[in-house]
Amino acid sequence: MPVFTPDTVRTELQDIPGHPCGPARMLRYSDSGGLTQFGAFVEILPPGSRSSLCHWHEREDEMVYMLEGQVTLWEGGTARLLNPGEAATFRAGDPAGHYLRNDGTAEARYLVIGTRAGADRITYPDHDRIIDYDDRAGVETITTLDGRPAAESPYYLPGA
Amino acid sequence: MPVFTPDTVRTELQDIPGHPCGPARMLRYSDSGGLTQFGAFVEILPPGSRSSLCHWHEREDEMVYMLEGQVTLWEGGTARLLNPGEAATFRAGDPAGHYLRNDGTAEARYLVIGTRAGADRITYPDHDRIIDYDDRAGVETITTLDGRPAAESPYYLPGA
Repeated sequence: MPVFTPDTVRTELQDIPGHPCGPARMLRYSDSGGLTQFGAFVEILPPGSRSSLCHWHEREDEMVYMLEGQVTLWEGGTARLLNPGEAATFRAGDPAGHYLRNDGTAEARYLVIGTRAGADRITYPDHDRIIDYDDRAGVETITTLDGRPAAESPYYLPGA
Repeated sequence: MPVFTPDTVRTELQDIPGHPCGPARMLRYSDSGGLTQFGAFVEILPPGSRSSLCHWHEREDEMVYMLEGQVTLWEGGTARLLNPGEAATFRAGDPAGHYLRNDGTAEARYLVIGTRAGADRITYPDHDRIIDYDDRAGVETITTLDGRPAAESPYYLPGA
């Protein structure tokens, strides 16, 4: 029976020196069960870390459901706190860049749900980057916001 | 900013006399935010109620993440308890019928996530029914497990 506990779920530690988002831990429930149509994982965000760079998806719906602690949700340049039992939704194609940041002193825990479209365009408005990818074709391209080819991922820009 | 609290999220009370699953309350977070690619809602299940009839989906991945209380997960004829922080995954096409039941004395709360494929075949192995639907074509057909036309939904069979 495909049931996963915090002890048996596939866990990923993201702790890359210099990574602009800081460390985080992901409990990958949907991947553990072999689901492919959406991703659903618990992210454990220590104080000072953020979920991602500011971004929005052309093709994939996203949602965050708060479990424990508190994060600041930035979207389209404005901020608000997100508390347990609250959820934020991000519609595919809505050009409002968003990310979460833990500005508190305690660990925060939330469930992230996102469609797995297999091909998408992700825009990073604060970092002058657009990533286009198509998993089936095995293609990924990185450009600036005005479409010029760019070598660097937004995650590895100086000062990102 | 599309943020929903338990007070602002669209809430649905299912309390139909004679319904085989008993009453339940759904906090429809993803619908409140206008997401269409997956459904993600919190279900509040009182003692004695169940999430659904035993069923499995041909085309839609499903997942349940336990938030509060405890439910019994039945799948493929076997049962286990599901506690907060645990998740069960149900892959599209895996022919293991499943449902949750609250056999305890306290309310249970869990997040349900499911793809919105727009067309699917749902099999109810314990109720001799298959529902095929296609939202775009506006078609729904109900048959028995061996393919004979059937008038009644599995939810409204005598003794369901």
